[in-house]
Order: sequence, then structure tokens, then C-alpha cells
Amino acid sequence: MAKRKYAIGVDFGTESGRAVLVDVSNGKELATAVYPYSNRVIDEYLPGTKIRLEPDWALQDPEDYIRTFKKTIPAVLKESGIDPVDVIGVGVDFTACTMMPVKSDGTPLCVIPQYRKNPHAWVKLWKHHAAQPEADKINATARAMGESWLDRYGGKISSEWFFSKTLQILDEAPEIYNAADRLLEATDWVIWQLTGVETRNSCTAGYKAMWSKREGFPHNEYFAALDPRLEHVVDEKLMRDISPIGNKAGELTAQAARWTGLKPGTAVAVANVDAHVAVPATSVAEPGRMVMIMGTSICHMVLGKEEHLVPGICGYVEDGILPGLFGYEAGQSCVGDHFAWFIENATPPQYFAEAKKDKVSVHAILEREAARLRPGESGLLALDWWNGNRSVLVDVDLTGMLLGATLATKAPEMYRALIEATAFGTRVIVDALDNNGVPVNELVACGGLPEKNKLLMQIYADVTGREFKVSASAQTPALGSAMFGAVAAGKAAGGYDTIFDAAPRMGHLKKQTFKPNPEAQKVYDKLYAEYVTLHDYFGRGVNDVMKRLKAIKVETRKA
Amino acid sequence: MAKRKYAIGVDFGTESGRAVLVDVSNGKELATAVYPYSNRVIDEYLPGTKIRLEPDWALQDPEDYIRTFKKTIPAVLKESGIDPVDVIGVGVDFTACTMMPVKSDGTPLCVIPQYRKNPHAWVKLWKHHAAQPEADKINATARAMGESWLDRYGGKISSEWFFSKTLQILDEAPEIYNAADRLLEATDWVIWQLTGVETRNSCTAGYKAMWSKREGFPHNEYFAALDPRLEHVVDEKLMRDISPIGNKAGELTAQAARWTGLKPGTAVAVANVDAHVAVPATSVAEPGRMVMIMGTSICHMVLGKEEHLVPGICGYVEDGILPGLFGYEAGQSCVGDHFAWFIENATPPQYFAEAKKDKVSVHAILEREAARLRPGESGLLALDWWNGNRSVLVDVDLTGMLLGATLATKAPEMYRALIEATAFGTRVIVDALDNNGVPVNELVACGGLPEKNKLLMQIYADVTGREFKVSASAQTPALGSAMFGAVAAGKAAGGYDTIFDAAPRMGHLKKQTFKPNPEAQKVYDKLYAEYVTLHDYFGRGVNDVMKRLKAIKVETRKA
Repeated sequence: MAKRKYAIGVDFGTESGRAVLVDVSNGKELATAVYPYSNRVIDEYLPGTKIRLEPDWALQDPEDYIRTFKKTIPAVLKESGIDPVDVIGVGVDFTACTMMPVKSDGTPLCVIPQYRKNPHAWVKLWKHHAAQPEADKINATARAMGESWLDRYGGKISSEWFFSKTLQILDEAPEIYNAADRLLEATDWVIWQLTGVETRNSCTAGYKAMWSKREGFPHNEYFAALDPRLEHVVDEKLMRDISPIGNKAGELTAQAARWTGLKPGTAVAVANVDAHVAVPATSVAEPGRMVMIMGTSICHMVLGKEEHLVPGICGYVEDGILPGLFGYEAGQSCVGDHFAWFIENATPPQYFAEAKKDKVSVHAILEREAARLRPGESGLLALDWWNGNRSVLVDVDLTGMLLGATLATKAPEMYRALIEATAFGTRVIVDALDNNGVPVNELVACGGLPEKNKLLMQIYADVTGREFKVSASAQTPALGSAMFGAVAAGKAAGGYDTIFDAAPRMGHLKKQTFKPNPEAQKVYDKLYAEYVTLHDYFGRGVNDVMKRLKAIKVETRKA
Repeated sequence: MAKRKYAIGVDFGTESGRAVLVDVSNGKELATAVYPYSNRVIDEYLPGTKIRLEPDWALQDPEDYIRTFKKTIPAVLKESGIDPVDVIGVGVDFTACTMMPVKSDGTPLCVIPQYRKNPHAWVKLWKHHAAQPEADKINATARAMGESWLDRYGGKISSEWFFSKTLQILDEAPEIYNAADRLLEATDWVIWQLTGVETRNSCTAGYKAMWSKREGFPHNEYFAALDPRLEHVVDEKLMRDISPIGNKAGELTAQAARWTGLKPGTAVAVANVDAHVAVPATSVAEPGRMVMIMGTSICHMVLGKEEHLVPGICGYVEDGILPGLFGYEAGQSCVGDHFAWFIENATPPQYFAEAKKDKVSVHAILEREAARLRPGESGLLALDWWNGNRSVLVDVDLTGMLLGATLATKAPEMYRALIEATAFGTRVIVDALDNNGVPVNELVACGGLPEKNKLLMQIYADVTGREFKVSASAQTPALGSAMFGAVAAGKAAGGYDTIFDAAPRMGHLKKQTFKPNPEAQKVYDKLYAEYVTLHDYFGRGVNDVMKRLKAIKVETRKA
């Protein structure tokens, strides 16, 4: 019998990095370690200075990423007690688009004293939202020039994405733009640090940087139209050679081996993204099963064999999730955040008192009370747009609505209506995919919400009419990264040759699933029809009251 | 100089009766006394029995009315120290429709032992809501027969009104219907007890019993169509001789003089209704000024010289408010109740903590925070239909809606949006009257809300673009009744010959008024346009989602 082999996955989140050490044969998680970033999210002052950031800024410190490697990998080796020589591969996943300017040797500009006090020298975190004017320009220019790639992203590029952030650097800090030999995703940068080799992964290139396997990046004329200084950005600061995810990026350098306690030469996978590595980690490696990362928001991913334009999805990328398949991604921008808002801003004291008495969370109390209601019993219906609508309307100016309230309406009824609204939002996405050639037969959940809220899971099953399964891992992305590490190592080294071989062995789902209840489905079909009517009325231009109210609000606040 | 003369007004409310003793020359209130009804609102068990009432029932005990006279009038005489001989007149006002079955001598059936255990023998209070099937039948039959009077009531008779309640007695307790020699409003009954003379006032006859000065009651064929036993109800149990309000009903009997300590022969005014007597008590006795009784709900009253059909108002009655004028009445069913609901069901703990710390009500905290916002600043818009819509849509199946919420939305913003929604609701009524020949140039408020919430008053002024004045009296209806008492006495006795003479002398408004702010008006004009669009979309059949949700809710609860 062959000796057991292991892989390590490192998941770089918003507030911390996490390593997990996994048995390659069965996906069993032997050890976990978390490193809370010492500089966390930088959104007020640049570290160690009184330099204040503007609103909507969100930065990170790249040295926190290196510290994550140094702290967590030795910790999981120690905890598991295994021999580092049996770790055959390492994979990482990251938030995205989280991007940074570096010198040609990989040195981040923000660690170089002459640039350290310029906020643009630092890592721009995914939720840095200060590049909206640049995103508007990117969209307007693309529309004016009839750029075909715009359709792949539901017709709109986000302010969070790569070239919005790049253009902001150029607009506001041309000296940083000029000093940057390379501009890249943090996920590619950490792989560079581990391997000494610069690579660019197909996932972020496709989903965040307008690249496609068939057409490459937008042409230079487009970039020149945005700004003449940007004409050669791809050749000057990016790379046209994009590595498909699932490939090996390189091998651990002697320096990275010293950081981590692993052996030099250990295989390292091409960089990846947290949501996308979760797909194989839930054992999904084929079309028809939609993976949903459910937390403050939802990221929906489904694989397809063919290319289809699906209006209003975030994007689709060939090789974007798994090699050889089209990865379709959609999103809902307000899910866990929605319930947190409700508890903070609209839940009366008696539920807090009850939670205290029963020693549970207020969420648990509201869920318990809401679970006693039958579908339709509250008479309420909501539009889940408290944070705009990502898919399929792609409109941040839409706002939330609650309808059907009476003097007898209670907080758990409203809480349930908000859950139902997010479920209807998911069904709109499922229907859009399903009706445009990308079938969705089953839902697979991972993330924080499915662990916490069983009522929510049942409602999603009832509303979508699909069986809903849950990842067995509480740290699905880190597990997914470890799987890519095992694939980078290859079968000969004790790993797998493809992610398709790894997924069924290392990815697991819980036995308990949520099956649609036919009685509930019948009622929800009726409520969903009402939801869609209101969705289209308010969201597709019949009555733009939400936008007009927002315009009045903005005007009033300026006055 | 003539000796000072006084009048007493007695206001019969839902929970208590109140007497006020007023100086006839200037309306000054010298003394007040309140009697909380010993049997309050009877909505669970018949007094002294285990006989349980069905849901939606609400009864009163007529002996509480007599006890009100016996307790409060001697109390105000004593408190003021005046000579009873100087009290020249008494007036009363009542909730309506509050009706009862009595014998031909006025004895209530519920005090007769053989009927006492039958709930139908008791006084049906205005908010007795168990006669909806009867109201439906009254409306359907009237529509089928093309009854012209239906239009005077906005096309719909309420379950609260006189013949709905009468028909319920006949349907459910024919033995009580048969035993009742007379069926009448409690307000007419108390006048009968004071004077020994049965009279019927034009206000309740017109607003609650489908009577009009020009056409009388609906014809016997209509009543026969409702139920053959009801054919001669008017001649058998009511009275066709209707006394205009402002007239004298009779004089105090020896018995009533013993109850009250007043002199036998004191003039007693024709019975009246709480909302309607408030009009002259706010000095309003001419067209163009709309009086609003603002509490849990709003009752709007305005006088007109001519007869106009105004779609969606509660009704208009010639001589209904003041003699010789058409009294137009409209209503909003959810105002104070709305804010109370919000505090009980959607206000988070920190505002309760703040209220406790500052030793004020939660309302006061929310008002203070909401007052810091500018019109339009919250981005929110609501439809104030938490308790259906009375005017102008006359539809109890409509429900509440809040739109424009974001993750940054706070409780005071929602609170303000609800206030604004009720103001928009008032503007719809003002516009309906104004556009249909019943001008509204100014608003005059009385009731509990104007005392408590200055922000609300300013918002109503800004939204309607009308100056908003406030009654100087905290007990406007009782003052109004005293004024009708002074008119019943007449000028020769030291009172007034008409209510038009009394109103400017005895009715008073506060000096502080609320004038529309032109800047706020501009923003509210925009928001009101949005409100009207949604009002018509949801309320006039474009999208009947509220009704369908209610139907699903009812179905679910039955299942």
C-alpha cells in the first residue's frame, strides 16, 4: 500500500488567511490554521501614518500574505504531525479582483520607501469601490466602440474589476502607474512569491480582466481610447500568456521552503479564486449542478459545455472554473447582509431579550419563529435589492422593497419574507441560465449561511424546485485549493492528473439534503410570479422610481 | 353687564365619557371630568357571565352612559363652583355608528333579564366588525338594484354602519330584532334619556344610515330585497322625522336633573357625533377649511355649499356637520396606529435605550432623529395602507409597502417615510375634494397627534402646500358639544341662535401654525408624483398583487 500523500490549500480572505492540510486520497482535513492579517482591511489610514484614505477605499498589505504562509503552513504541519516530504502540492485561492503594482522582480511598490506613503502603491482589495468613474468610462467607451466582449459580462464591467482599478491608478497617481513594471492580481503575486515564476491564471484574467481564451484581451486601440497612456498596458504590465487553472505554476523555491517548512521543489498550482476553487471542492465537476457560495452575498457558479450568452450574468469564462468547460458566474449582492441589516435596524427588543434568555443568536430566534409560518402565510413579498441587484439586472441603483404589511405584521414574518426574496432572486438566475442553454438541475451550497440557517436552505429548495445539497467542508475554498495542489503534483507523485479525477475523491457533500416540498412549491410558484412582475416593473424601466428616489437623495445630501 | 352663562358638552368616547363646562361668551373651559366606563369595551365576555364573544365583536353597556352623566356633570359643576341655573344648555357627541335595540319606552334590551345574556341585546360599538357579510349583501343588493344613494358613500357601505349591524341582529338573533321596538344610535338614545323625547339626528342618519335630506331613507323595496322581514324597518323601528343638528331636542327631565344636578328644563341639543362637533369647535363654519381629527386614524371634514360627487370619500350629508351646508367626510384608516405599529414591531433596541436614558417616549426619540433629515434624504417612499385604504380607494384589502431601502437605511428614516406616506394620503384626499368642486384652502387639526408630533404637522403642511392650524382645545369634541348646547338654549337665554354665531366666539385655534416651506414643498411635489403613480398602480387594479397575496394568506391560514 502506497504511503499517504497530502496537499495544502491556502485561502486568502478579506480579514485573514487560512491553511488546511488535506489527505489527497480522500479529502480528509487533518489540520487547519488561520492568520488574521496584522493590517486587516486598510480603509481609514495607511499603516503607521496619518494619511487618511478617501471613502470607498479598501487596501491590503502584501506582507500579510507572506506572513500567512509563514504562520499557517508550519502550523498545519506541526498539528498534523506528518512528514513535510509527503506534502506533494500547494494551491492557493484569493479574493478577486484584488490587485497590486509591483516592480519587475515582484517587489510590491508599497514596501519601497519612496512609494510607501502613496495609497495607490498598496494592494487594492476586491471591495475597493472608489473606481466607479473609471468603470463608467470603461463601459461607455466599450459601448461606443461596439466591443463584443462586453456581452460576456452581462453588458457591464464593475468598478471592482482589474482595469477599473488600473485606470484609477493612472488617473490619480500616474507616478505609481509608471513605476509599476507589472500590475497583477494578488493571487498571481503570491504564487510568484512561492515559485519565483510570474504566471497569470485564466480565472481572474477571464472574470476580472476582460480576457478570453478565444479572443485574448481587448485590443490596444480600445485601451488607447480609454487613455493614450494605456494603449500597451497588456504588453507592458500584464502578460498575454495565460495559464489555465488546473495547471502547475512551478515549484517551491528554497526561500519559500524556508518560510513554510515544506520541501523545495514541491509542486505549486496556478493561482485561483476563492469562489471558483469551491466548485470542485463540493465534488461538482460537470454541467447541471450550480454551486452557490452563500455568505454576506451569493456567488453562483455553473459549468457548461457550450458558450451561451446569458443576459445579466456576471460573466462566463472558458477554463474559468475548470479546464475545458465554460464557467458561468452570477451573483446576488445582498443575502447574509440583508438579514444582518434586518436584525440591526428593524428587529424590536423582545427578540433580543428572547435570544438572551435562550442563549442563542437573534438570528436563531427569528429563524425559529419564521419556521413556524407556512409559505404565503405572512402575506408579505419583498424585492431583495437592499444592496442593488447584481444578476440579472446588473444595477446598483435599485433598492429594497417590502409589500403586504398590515398592523398585524410581526418581525419573524418580515425576516422570512427577506429570506424568500433572496430565494426568488436565486430563482431568477437559475431561470435565466436554464432558459439560455445552461441547465441547472441541482443546487450545491457552501459558505457560512448553509451551516447557520436550515430554514433558508429549505426555502431555496422549495422556491427553485431543485434539490439543495451542502458541502461537507466548513472551509470549502481551502479544501479546493488543496485539490488543485494535488493536481499540480500529478498522479505520478501521488496526486491526480486532472481536477476531474480529484473532485469525486476529495470533494464531499453532506448526507442531509433539502428536497423541494411539493405543497410549498405550489404556493411559491404563485409568489414567484408576483415577484417577477414587480422585479420587471421596478427593475426593467417600467417605473424607475427607485432610481429617481436615489437621485433625489443624492441631490438632497449635496445641498 | 349680563351674568355669565355656561354650557356643558358631554363627549362619549370608546373607553370613557368626558364632560366639560364652558363659558358661553368665549369658549373658555372651566372644568372637566372624565368617567372611565366600568365595563369599558366589551370584546371578550358579556359582563358578569362566561358567555364568550366571537372575534371582531365590540359592545358597550348603556348603563355606563347614564353613569357618565351622573358622575361627570355634578363633578364639573362642583369644580367650577358656578350656579347650575347659569348652565343654559347641554350637548352631547358620541362615537358612531354605535347602535342599540330598545323597547318603546327606551329601555335597552340588555337591561331586561330575559335578553341580558344575548350579545345582540347590547350596544354595538362603532368598531364592532362582525357584520361584514351583511355589509357585502347591502352593497351587492344596492348595486344590483342601481340604488343612487350608494354613490354618496363612495360606492360602498361599511360593516360598521347602521344597517349592517341591524341586518346582523336580524340574521343571527331574530328574537332580539323582534323584541326591539326601536333601533337607534346611542347618541340619540342618551338625548332621549335626558329629555324623555325620542329624536333622530341628521348627522348619523346621513353618514351611517343612508338617509338624505332630499331623498330620505332607501325605499322599502330595497329593504325587502335585503330580507323580507326588513321591508318596513324604517317605519317600525326608526323614524322618518330627522332633526337637523343645531336644533334643540328637548329639555332636561326631572329625573335627568336629579342625575346631573342641573335644572329641569335646561335646553338639550339634538344628538351629534364626536368628529363632526369638532368642526365648529375649531372655529370652522364655512367652506374651504378642512378639519382633521388626527389620532389612531384621521377623519377629514370639509363643508361645501353645493352637492358634488367626490369619488372615494366616506360620504357627504346635507346638514350633516352644520345646518344648511353639505358636510363632506373622508378618512385614513392608519395614522397613529401606523407609528405605534412601527415602534412595536420594527424599532430596534437602541432607540428604546435612548428613550429610557432621556426619559422620553420612543416616539419622541424617533421624531427627534427623523426631524434631522431633509425631505427626500432617506430615499424611501411608503404606501400608508397597513390598515387598508379608506379614502379615496375604499379598499380594506390593500396593504402597506415600503420602497427604497438600502443597507444604510435606519429606523428614523423609515419612521419619517411612514409619516410622509400618511401626508401623501391626506394630499390625495385634498386633491380629490379640490378637483371635484369642494375647495380645500387650509387644514385645521385637532386630536391627539398634533399635540405630540410637530414634525408630522410640518410635513403635512409641506406635502399639501397648505397652512396647517391646530385647535386650541385639548378636548375639542366636548367643547363642540357645549357649543351645540349653547345653540339649543338660543340667544334669548344667553346662548346663540345658530352654530355660525357660536363658532367664531367659542371655537379657538392656537397662534402657532405650520406654514409650508417652499424648498421642502418642491421635493415633496416630486415624491408625491411617485406616490400617486404607485398608489394608482397598486390601488386601482393595474397590479392587484396586494389582493392576491391576501387571498393566498387567507387560503394558507384556512389549510
